[in-house]
Amino acid sequence: MDLKTKVTERLLIQYPIIQAPMAGGVTTSELVAEVSNTGGLGMIGAGYMTPDQVRKQIREIKELTNAPFGVNLFVPGEFDTTEKEWQEANQALQPIRNQLNIPDDKTDAPVFDHLLETFQEQMKVIQEEEVPICSFTFGIPSKDTVKQLKSQDIILIGTATTVKEAIEIERSGMDIVVVQGSEAGGHRGDFSPDNQDGLVGLMSLIPQVVDQVRIPVIAAGGIMDGRGLMASLCLGAEGVQMGTAFLTCKESGANPLHKQEILQAQEDQVVLTRSFSGKWARGIHNQFISEFSQKEATIPDYPVQNSLTKGIRKASASQGNPEYMSLWSGQSPRLAKDQTVKTLMESVITEAKQVSVE
Amino acid sequence: MDLKTKVTERLLIQYPIIQAPMAGGVTTSELVAEVSNTGGLGMIGAGYMTPDQVRKQIREIKELTNAPFGVNLFVPGEFDTTEKEWQEANQALQPIRNQLNIPDDKTDAPVFDHLLETFQEQMKVIQEEEVPICSFTFGIPSKDTVKQLKSQDIILIGTATTVKEAIEIERSGMDIVVVQGSEAGGHRGDFSPDNQDGLVGLMSLIPQVVDQVRIPVIAAGGIMDGRGLMASLCLGAEGVQMGTAFLTCKESGANPLHKQEILQAQEDQVVLTRSFSGKWARGIHNQFISEFSQKEATIPDYPVQNSLTKGIRKASASQGNPEYMSLWSGQSPRLAKDQTVKTLMESVITEAKQVSVE
Repeated sequence: MDLKTKVTERLLIQYPIIQAPMAGGVTTSELVAEVSNTGGLGMIGAGYMTPDQVRKQIREIKELTNAPFGVNLFVPGEFDTTEKEWQEANQALQPIRNQLNIPDDKTDAPVFDHLLETFQEQMKVIQEEEVPICSFTFGIPSKDTVKQLKSQDIILIGTATTVKEAIEIERSGMDIVVVQGSEAGGHRGDFSPDNQDGLVGLMSLIPQVVDQVRIPVIAAGGIMDGRGLMASLCLGAEGVQMGTAFLTCKESGANPLHKQEILQAQEDQVVLTRSFSGKWARGIHNQFISEFSQKEATIPDYPVQNSLTKGIRKASASQGNPEYMSLWSGQSPRLAKDQTVKTLMESVITEAKQVSVE
Repeated sequence: MDLKTKVTERLLIQYPIIQAPMAGGVTTSELVAEVSNTGGLGMIGAGYMTPDQVRKQIREIKELTNAPFGVNLFVPGEFDTTEKEWQEANQALQPIRNQLNIPDDKTDAPVFDHLLETFQEQMKVIQEEEVPICSFTFGIPSKDTVKQLKSQDIILIGTATTVKEAIEIERSGMDIVVVQGSEAGGHRGDFSPDNQDGLVGLMSLIPQVVDQVRIPVIAAGGIMDGRGLMASLCLGAEGVQMGTAFLTCKESGANPLHKQEILQAQEDQVVLTRSFSGKWARGIHNQFISEFSQKEATIPDYPVQNSLTKGIRKASASQGNPEYMSLWSGQSPRLAKDQTVKTLMESVITEAKQVSVE
């Protein structure tokens, strides 16, 4: 039982364990490099970064490891929010700003053209810096983009929440697909508009996807240890992507309050909400989610709501108050530990080998 | 790899595969007996049966098998629906009755005392007929009941959707706990009123429960084949309970339209709804669910709504129209097959052994 799979072969890594590209400061250079140095694949969550920040971090990580690592980007989607809706959404946040004693920091509404331009510049950096692996969330980049990246031998990984999305990713020419189960923390990666219910648990999602695509499948959502790794391989996946398990590691850049909240949480306190960003995401229930629970439908789409709540989330964190922070977590917080990446990687691998022997 | 676990030892069965006790006519005597005859555990879904019907079926099954089988009962819960709410809920169903050209068949609102009495009589039958295994859904029976059943050496199985519920089941003195993942079809078995989110995927739920209880854990939800069985065992379960996989079998009593709809469905068409019964349940999206999607909150609790929609579901079935039937299904309909129980059991076991060798 050497844990070699199509994913370890393709990505040139030792173990089929990928650190989920969590955006928003979690994936420090130390975290990414240490995952790659211990035999997994470290990933930069570059979704919110400027092209210069992406370049800077890629160079930092290259100083820390010779092993492969990757970058994840958000594929920009269209959004449609009127000036009035935006004003109303901003108004709805004012009582929380008053409570936190911070000013209305509303900026201009994000512009789609600008996001697309940033995305193209981010990809240019990845090519220039010769990053070997690039993954995408919230959609599929254009045919031309896929073609260009592949011409430079960059391995492309898409993110799907249903069989249909996985098939679309395969058809687009990407090399590997991450299937995100309903267990997953943070933002849902769904992009197909005709989903009735994209919240499919991994026990259902992995085998149904594996039966319909030929590219290797990586399982994501709630996987924290060797049991989850071996279960995913039994279901037909060729590897796992773990987020929350790495988020509470010492090398992660997550706010200490965020780590603490996960370490104390129970599985039924981790809920889905649109309140922070306008996109469905899973995190630990707190006052902010509670205040918006009856108004989920009125919240403007991502990234509009995301930009409107930024100041509140930041102020809440700096005031040491977890009630207005986005405390993203998967459904397995009871399995999270305060540990180093090395300890986590070693225990996952040791446990996986024990499970498989039984 | 002989697939022996604590569950096969305790239940005296050959393979750790339990046929989910689907209520409403699915679990024919032929289905239950054939599952037990092929090495699994057949279960009567007796939730909606009269005590006499339960006794009749137990005797029928005893004619068809010498192997162990079990009975599942619904633990009656309190409900609180005013005459006005009940009238309004009935009125909301009238347009559908008109469309199906059926009369208002509203019966008296169900009475809690009566349900409790029926439950006690059902248990009396189980004791008199010496059924070796009894499982419960929607709660935990009283201490006295547990004590009495255990004094007759009946093995008791509870149903949990969270770690907290599993711990409560263990504390009540039951022998085994079924953990129902969010993937599961039909009614959610949650009973703890302070759940923030009881929809936990099995990848998260199994290991978190296994770490907190000493009694054996059986995994339920989306498991259809040897891959799901082996994945569940990797996660720490001692067996699986499969519903949808048995529902489409030739021996099942499910309406042929229901079987056909599952065989044609995709994973993202299987949604959660309160519309049919007042309790959250997972089934294939159809016109009935669609009409109530904006009114989920106004629907009276189980079993009030369940009794109000009974005539509609029945008429829809007899008119060959799946749009107003409750088409319960788990999240893995793409893995469902039209086959015999024997073929299903053999393929699960063969595949499980293959998965474990790899």
